[in-house]
Amino acid sequence: MLLSIIVIGDELLIGQVTDTNSGWIARNINPIGWTVKSVRVVADDAVEIKNAIDEAFKETDLVLTTGGLGPTKDDITKETLRQIFGGEMIYDKATEANVLEVVNKRHLKINPLTAAQAYVPSSCRVIQNKVGTAPIMWFEKGEKVLVSMPGVPFETETMMSTEIIPQLIAHFNAHDYIEHRTFVVIDYSESVLAMKLDDFETHIPDYIKLAYLPKPGLIRLRLTGVHKDKSILEQNIENLSAELTSILGKSIISYQDLPLSKILGNELERRNFTISTAESCTGGYIAHQITQNAGCSAYFKGSIVCYSNDVKMNLLGVESTTLEKDGAVSENTVIEMVKGVSKLINTDCAIAISGIAGPDGGSETKPVGTVWISVKCKNIINTSVFHFPGDRMRVIDRATMEAEKMSLKLILNS
Amino acid sequence: MLLSIIVIGDELLIGQVTDTNSGWIARNINPIGWTVKSVRVVADDAVEIKNAIDEAFKETDLVLTTGGLGPTKDDITKETLRQIFGGEMIYDKATEANVLEVVNKRHLKINPLTAAQAYVPSSCRVIQNKVGTAPIMWFEKGEKVLVSMPGVPFETETMMSTEIIPQLIAHFNAHDYIEHRTFVVIDYSESVLAMKLDDFETHIPDYIKLAYLPKPGLIRLRLTGVHKDKSILEQNIENLSAELTSILGKSIISYQDLPLSKILGNELERRNFTISTAESCTGGYIAHQITQNAGCSAYFKGSIVCYSNDVKMNLLGVESTTLEKDGAVSENTVIEMVKGVSKLINTDCAIAISGIAGPDGGSETKPVGTVWISVKCKNIINTSVFHFPGDRMRVIDRATMEAEKMSLKLILNS
Repeated sequence: MLLSIIVIGDELLIGQVTDTNSGWIARNINPIGWTVKSVRVVADDAVEIKNAIDEAFKETDLVLTTGGLGPTKDDITKETLRQIFGGEMIYDKATEANVLEVVNKRHLKINPLTAAQAYVPSSCRVIQNKVGTAPIMWFEKGEKVLVSMPGVPFETETMMSTEIIPQLIAHFNAHDYIEHRTFVVIDYSESVLAMKLDDFETHIPDYIKLAYLPKPGLIRLRLTGVHKDKSILEQNIENLSAELTSILGKSIISYQDLPLSKILGNELERRNFTISTAESCTGGYIAHQITQNAGCSAYFKGSIVCYSNDVKMNLLGVESTTLEKDGAVSENTVIEMVKGVSKLINTDCAIAISGIAGPDGGSETKPVGTVWISVKCKNIINTSVFHFPGDRMRVIDRATMEAEKMSLKLILNS
Repeated sequence: MLLSIIVIGDELLIGQVTDTNSGWIARNINPIGWTVKSVRVVADDAVEIKNAIDEAFKETDLVLTTGGLGPTKDDITKETLRQIFGGEMIYDKATEANVLEVVNKRHLKINPLTAAQAYVPSSCRVIQNKVGTAPIMWFEKGEKVLVSMPGVPFETETMMSTEIIPQLIAHFNAHDYIEHRTFVVIDYSESVLAMKLDDFETHIPDYIKLAYLPKPGLIRLRLTGVHKDKSILEQNIENLSAELTSILGKSIISYQDLPLSKILGNELERRNFTISTAESCTGGYIAHQITQNAGCSAYFKGSIVCYSNDVKMNLLGVESTTLEKDGAVSENTVIEMVKGVSKLINTDCAIAISGIAGPDGGSETKPVGTVWISVKCKNIINTSVFHFPGDRMRVIDRATMEAEKMSLKLILNS
């Protein structure tokens, strides 16, 4: 089954907010065999919203909208939906009770604008929003269904998982099965990988697609199949997966679509190893990525963000002579950092980084983007220098990715 | 002037990649007085792409597309554009030379798939992509212009800044002026702020809009005006800004759309103060946010990510009796952490956080979302407990925001 998403909000069209709702919906509606046909982003404007809904209903029977439901004056979605689906605005007691409950939980007081959330078109069925004050509205017109949801990602995600997806399945009763299989691949650029897989791609059946999803430093390959017969689909996806595995071997570092930090964490946990980081230019970003994964306390003990040379010397034991002779961005400094942090925090493995993220601080011999990385696992230390292009955040991001890859490779070979 | 954006790629419709290009384009095309009317996200499918372009050209004379230009088989944008705008595929020597140059810079070798990037429709004018291998294609049909750009954000951002936006201005010669003014406001919920500004909103002229852009923990207010007369526009925006300032006073923490970490950094730098952080549940996220800002080494010296109790005791000097009696997530622990880190790293100010980000680790007395935050500036320490809703990343994010706000308030009053 196909559906369309309409994302409503002026703030998206001037780029002050990035839409993450449509991606979340896609990721979570895919496993039930449904496909997002298109996403439209439109302004808080009645005509725009109406046109987008018209266009979307031409393509699909199901339209999900997010946003445009805030209590302030720039939000006009609710009244527009009333005009499309008919009825009049009514004060809904159940919605009022829900708004009160949500507001109480937050230890806030109700005010006229929050209270106004209880007005809904009589043509909709309300799904009570357990985590926010904007009611979720389910509209039907013949075969067509539109569900209007809030713009706050946490609210939409919570309510879709618990209420909306189950109700949609009950309503539409999907018949097609869908299977995804993701492979996280390193060591290849996109075009070299495509050549390597040229033969493989020629004998993939019509109902299965291979997609390349490159990220800096790695490529995710995704097989997606849609078929009425679940066992045929599963068998074929299984065969193709086995074939990919034999072609790519160790370059596949994960068979799940996991972030690199989680793949690294899983390998650490499997070996009962602990890790720490000493971060200069990445400023704690590696530690942040590792600690985003629940359960990381099993292997992650701590980090030293050593932005100043004082911290490098006093805490990590980097020699002042090394800093004077070689500089903070050098092979010897990161080696002393990686030894220092693994000793200080007492871990089996460690990552140390020092580089020039820019835009300032570069020189002729060490331009912006120069990053030294050292990784340690037990008694083995690997150290490399990189030259990353791009702005500050891009350098931080790439350095983090490469450090995680270096650490992962060392651990996989240990 | 109005424009439409079309974002092309299967990976976006299954949610494996989040589109940031449309937001970037909007933010960077707004200052020249142009407005994004709509964004469409469509699959790597010729019919879908054609329909989206048809729809977009009905609305606007300018259409910008991103994505669908990779060298692999799932990308069919180029051929679709040839069908729409006519001509045939030709091998473009200048594009070949550019592809070679880009590939050489990356110390890679050219292969047949990269080389194929040099084929372009004869109906387009190529803008050479200085930072990637996919050529940028400029098509015209009567009044209509379509520019096809790569999907890799870094490439689109670099090329739009340096080449495409200047060429678009030269082509369309904008007449309207646009002015934005952003105010970062704390201390209010969206609805309470809207009530407070009810009178103010009634006398805003038609050509100026007020928008509420709430983020967890703060609200950005945005005045946007569009007018043919630059001085009238500027004067009116200036008057409204002064009025907002007198209504909201100290609750406005910035008159620029800056992240909280940058607002904090600016206040530290102004006072010549230094800062360090001791992070348990936020795992380095505060340090990462602070170090995303160029020039932060003027005030940021370092952080201790103290995920294990060993690190809290051995490095920060938290008493073992405190951890035993009160637990790691407690008022006394974060106070000892904030004192410990400011002494260890020798900074004027410090932030310490300990909490339960979840999904595991909660208890009846300290449920998931319980976070203790302590901030220090010179001899004054403020400490608070929070109970944040939501999943792990949401708790980390909110805790970081609240810690930065607490630190900022303490520093502003120092």
